[in-house]
Amino acid sequence: MRYPPAAMATITVLGAGMMGSALCVPLVDRGHDVRLVGTHLDTAIIDSLKERHVHPTLRLELPAAIRPYAAEELPAAMEGAELVVFGVSSAGIGWATETIAPFARPEVPIVMITKGLWLHEGRLAVLPDAVQRGLPEAVRRAVVPAAIAGPCIAGELARRVPTCVVVTGRDAATLARLTEVLRGPYYHVFPCADVVGAEVCAALKNAYAMGVAFGAGLHEKAGGAPGSVAMHNWESAVFAQAIREMMRIVALLGGDPLTVTGLPGVGDLDVTMNGGRTGRFGRWLGLGLGVAASIERMEGATLECLEILAVMRKGLAVYEARGELQPGELPLLRQMMAVALDGAPLEMPFERFFAG
Amino acid sequence: MRYPPAAMATITVLGAGMMGSALCVPLVDRGHDVRLVGTHLDTAIIDSLKERHVHPTLRLELPAAIRPYAAEELPAAMEGAELVVFGVSSAGIGWATETIAPFARPEVPIVMITKGLWLHEGRLAVLPDAVQRGLPEAVRRAVVPAAIAGPCIAGELARRVPTCVVVTGRDAATLARLTEVLRGPYYHVFPCADVVGAEVCAALKNAYAMGVAFGAGLHEKAGGAPGSVAMHNWESAVFAQAIREMMRIVALLGGDPLTVTGLPGVGDLDVTMNGGRTGRFGRWLGLGLGVAASIERMEGATLECLEILAVMRKGLAVYEARGELQPGELPLLRQMMAVALDGAPLEMPFERFFAG
Repeated sequence: MRYPPAAMATITVLGAGMMGSALCVPLVDRGHDVRLVGTHLDTAIIDSLKERHVHPTLRLELPAAIRPYAAEELPAAMEGAELVVFGVSSAGIGWATETIAPFARPEVPIVMITKGLWLHEGRLAVLPDAVQRGLPEAVRRAVVPAAIAGPCIAGELARRVPTCVVVTGRDAATLARLTEVLRGPYYHVFPCADVVGAEVCAALKNAYAMGVAFGAGLHEKAGGAPGSVAMHNWESAVFAQAIREMMRIVALLGGDPLTVTGLPGVGDLDVTMNGGRTGRFGRWLGLGLGVAASIERMEGATLECLEILAVMRKGLAVYEARGELQPGELPLLRQMMAVALDGAPLEMPFERFFAG
Repeated sequence: MRYPPAAMATITVLGAGMMGSALCVPLVDRGHDVRLVGTHLDTAIIDSLKERHVHPTLRLELPAAIRPYAAEELPAAMEGAELVVFGVSSAGIGWATETIAPFARPEVPIVMITKGLWLHEGRLAVLPDAVQRGLPEAVRRAVVPAAIAGPCIAGELARRVPTCVVVTGRDAATLARLTEVLRGPYYHVFPCADVVGAEVCAALKNAYAMGVAFGAGLHEKAGGAPGSVAMHNWESAVFAQAIREMMRIVALLGGDPLTVTGLPGVGDLDVTMNGGRTGRFGRWLGLGLGVAASIERMEGATLECLEILAVMRKGLAVYEARGELQPGELPLLRQMMAVALDGAPLEMPFERFFAG
């Protein structure tokens, strides 16, 4: 497989958090002109990158070829941009859409690594569709936002660990172009036409990863030490049920359940179990610290698992009211809502799993 | 959910290794009369159980209600048996079938925890079917062997960690009865009609777990320490491709690919990654120790991953010759064969993954 140095592109990444910054590494390695723009929350990161190329939260020196820009330098960073990447968190997606709107042009694709679902007119919608609705009318039809999903720990991608992801979106020509621009020798990018399937997985994996991580906490609470004999049977049963429930939710939202069996579902849920915020939070709930104390211990870090559980609770009620979902379905998701949103005791209703 | 103490059954487990012995714990806890019969390899285990109820390889005191029998005491252990469990390794399945044959009776189901595939008349066959063929003609039609599959580390089940498995077989009435007999408050048993799907997963998961474990070795070889930033992106991509390939193989052998998305596939592959022989062996190959040195380090332990890779290599050739499988399919499985059977260099052909 050749990676032609040809077709160098000018790429502007908005959001200098861990994932947005990590994605710059394969892109500059590929020979692209990469501009990394911090939000107003990223001032310290951009300053550090400008001074000595070090990303403080990735704890890594990034290639000097990545060009850092402060938020107020956005117009310069957008000059000649041929591709825009949204690297902000789901909470920042509205801001990012508004900020980019004046610069949006039909020939400049937007691709997002932001995850989330959004309740819109009685249906759960994926973020690329939400971003499209926020673009100026003049370009709305021409810019069909795409998204990246799949198992990718930012700190590993930034260290050039081989990584496989999908790029997904509703426009086939854009997908083909993005696949070609984004991929490189250690960043393997596969096109995926099922944007609903990929994005539902990306959004839900944090919630389900929390559920699997309950097991580590329960084990510790019972006096157990980490090791090959722990509560892995418990965790893997929850993992399997999580995949089954993601398939059900993808079908409910009009996507292809088989997308869950690949990188965006199985792959991303698996990688999310290897540490990170969600795993720690789930472990504390499993230990029995309670919701308030567990949130406090996160010291203000964004808890995407709680955000998505809150959106899903509202969403499921709407689908149930329409008779599209039965109250007995998704027992794991409902139990996670009870534990993490309402402080219910941590019991896993295994007997209600694996229906059908 | 109630677990009626009623319907106490007499159950004879053949094979006192870790998994056969662990399964006795939920069965005696449920109130069954459980006899555990050692093979001629299990003499030390049976002696220890008879003397002080301690299982030396599980490193655990088992409930005194489990009644241990030496191999030569099999006739006594089979007296009044209402259910026979095969707990031997795949290498011992022929011996177990011959040994049980004189005692096989139409009203006594056989359920196996042994895993494996078998090339028979040009097709890969699952073990329950192979066992059935080995039974005396008089009972062959009446005894339809069943099997247990799903994520179950023996040491955890023996310590009463909540565990979810499927029981699968070709006879619906037997499955319903087995589900009822086997399940208990922490051993959740779900019937699964797709015996090919469940058994293919059970057999293949060791091979694919080896492939995922290559990543830990590669990381260590590159000087990395365990942690949340390692080669998890690499591992989770291989994990997702493994699930996709198991779905393809299940379809090829006439099973239901969706079975792979539940306990026997996703669940069991996930649990197998949490240590054990296969993971250690894969790690050593990833470290670059080479096949011979890695096998030597296993100190004679059965390497189910190599057994199943050898069977699959023969099997795939037959399916390919008939045009039922294309040479470009199953790139991960083929690469694992090259590495673990032929000593090829460990490179992962990611660009050939996630086709279609």
